[in-house]
Amino acid sequence: MAMTVKEAASWLKARDKFLLLTHVRPDGDTIGSAAALCRALRNMGKEAYLLKNDGITATYVAYAEELWAPEDYVPQFVVSVDIAATSLFIDKAEQYKTAVDLAIDHHGSQEFFAKETCLVAECAACGEIVYGIIREMTEITAEIALPLYVAVSTDCGGFQYANTTPETHRIAAELMELVDVTAVNKALFRTKSFVRLKMESRMVEEMTLHFDNRVVVMSIPLSLRREMNATEADIEELSQLAAMVEGTDCGVTLRELREGVIKISIRTTPAMDASAICAVLGGGGHHGAAGATVEGTMESVKEAVLQAVKAVTEA
Amino acid sequence: MAMTVKEAASWLKARDKFLLLTHVRPDGDTIGSAAALCRALRNMGKEAYLLKNDGITATYVAYAEELWAPEDYVPQFVVSVDIAATSLFIDKAEQYKTAVDLAIDHHGSQEFFAKETCLVAECAACGEIVYGIIREMTEITAEIALPLYVAVSTDCGGFQYANTTPETHRIAAELMELVDVTAVNKALFRTKSFVRLKMESRMVEEMTLHFDNRVVVMSIPLSLRREMNATEADIEELSQLAAMVEGTDCGVTLRELREGVIKISIRTTPAMDASAICAVLGGGGHHGAAGATVEGTMESVKEAVLQAVKAVTEA
Repeated sequence: MAMTVKEAASWLKARDKFLLLTHVRPDGDTIGSAAALCRALRNMGKEAYLLKNDGITATYVAYAEELWAPEDYVPQFVVSVDIAATSLFIDKAEQYKTAVDLAIDHHGSQEFFAKETCLVAECAACGEIVYGIIREMTEITAEIALPLYVAVSTDCGGFQYANTTPETHRIAAELMELVDVTAVNKALFRTKSFVRLKMESRMVEEMTLHFDNRVVVMSIPLSLRREMNATEADIEELSQLAAMVEGTDCGVTLRELREGVIKISIRTTPAMDASAICAVLGGGGHHGAAGATVEGTMESVKEAVLQAVKAVTEA
Repeated sequence: MAMTVKEAASWLKARDKFLLLTHVRPDGDTIGSAAALCRALRNMGKEAYLLKNDGITATYVAYAEELWAPEDYVPQFVVSVDIAATSLFIDKAEQYKTAVDLAIDHHGSQEFFAKETCLVAECAACGEIVYGIIREMTEITAEIALPLYVAVSTDCGGFQYANTTPETHRIAAELMELVDVTAVNKALFRTKSFVRLKMESRMVEEMTLHFDNRVVVMSIPLSLRREMNATEADIEELSQLAAMVEGTDCGVTLRELREGVIKISIRTTPAMDASAICAVLGGGGHHGAAGATVEGTMESVKEAVLQAVKAVTEA
């Protein structure tokens, strides 16, 4: 049975000594939502911490670092935020895989691993649910509004992705009444590292077009990453680039994870089915965004992807 | 005396046979606002057209082309939309420079050239004012909501620029209740032409950093534009790119307009003053965004800009 937002708020209000969990390769939604909830619980006089997530990138560390739990912290209640499955737990959270008291999430693929679950799959961001929960419990202060804005705005691509709803905009409006988001918008949506710009530039220089320009393929070989000395933050979401090429229906990004292992990311317009293509390659996902991780060289995997596109479009 | 939104609505309601004017180098706000107002007036049983703007790019033509006035159309009332000054009239509108009955605008620099003016300078987009006016007059249908969304979303950089307000988000929410904006968001904010990507790539490859990486300079020589066969749409807003480089306070774009004439665009963080730098070069603008057009070679102008930066920062 899923809890409503109101029920989740009552549940939290009645308890104390929380540990909040975020997912692996943490993004703005998991960090922002957990940080906002943590601050709200503290404002209510409760004890609350985030389990330290070592995968956090420089982009989001400022929102979480003051809230990391001491190593010897013993919580009474464990709450996961924006985590759909136990496979997305960080290594350090291994012990909590069967011990989460409340999961707050917006993924349709939620596995219901927790004792209680507050799931609203219609929300673009988990931050929208956390906004609703906090509003039921306490006043939303500026220090709560800022990480909530980060959560909401990043998961809908700065209000430009298809998951953005009228409610997403309404929540953004409410949060902007409470805190100045100018610097956050600049940092999140209008800033690129020198290394990232150089990597994008090389990817564009070397991109190839196929099937009457309907398919574009971009590559991130290990050699490029090493040459550029790129961090994880520098290559975050780089698969968005191939999806931007005007007139194409299918953007393919091939990223060499390690020698002989290639991660395939595919983004499509409604005219093509990314998940069907990735299914042929042993992966999966959604109609518009899917992926697969396969063995081979960049060249052999590219050939396999093009064969899969051919098989699916001709089927 | 400026008219309020309510007064502008009453004024329009009481009249008929309108010609709507848009500004030179038309953007999403002037076209979207005028198209929405035109459709609303027609829905009210009135006659209304847009004066054909030959500078329209492929990005916006679909919103306006059904609404262009016949060559022999004789209006009773002329309304300008998003035009701050008569210098921004298109050539064809020359005869209306002293004959505009109502100007609807959001620019603080509005010159009050019209008989009546409805100015709300706090609005991120002229589309926000037009939204308010239409709501006072008639029902907002899907065909009105779509161009209004284009107007509102483009002038605030897809809700990511500093001019975005809570009201901007609230209006976006209302419009999204009326029409699906998924395809519009993809086209406006998540699509780049092949040529544009290649141009950006070359600009990044050849950018230079100065003054301990505080200043980045990017160049668009005529030779690059010719080599790429770039259209006006391909180079629209390219000065945004230099402003994105992480860790810099000043992004300079040098665009060779014609042999020996260079347009300088400067974007700065609050740490530096773009208008002071451009004043040294004979131009002007705002603290965060300014420009100048000067004579010289790309190399000599670059040197002049760096000298101007030095003079201003050491002052």
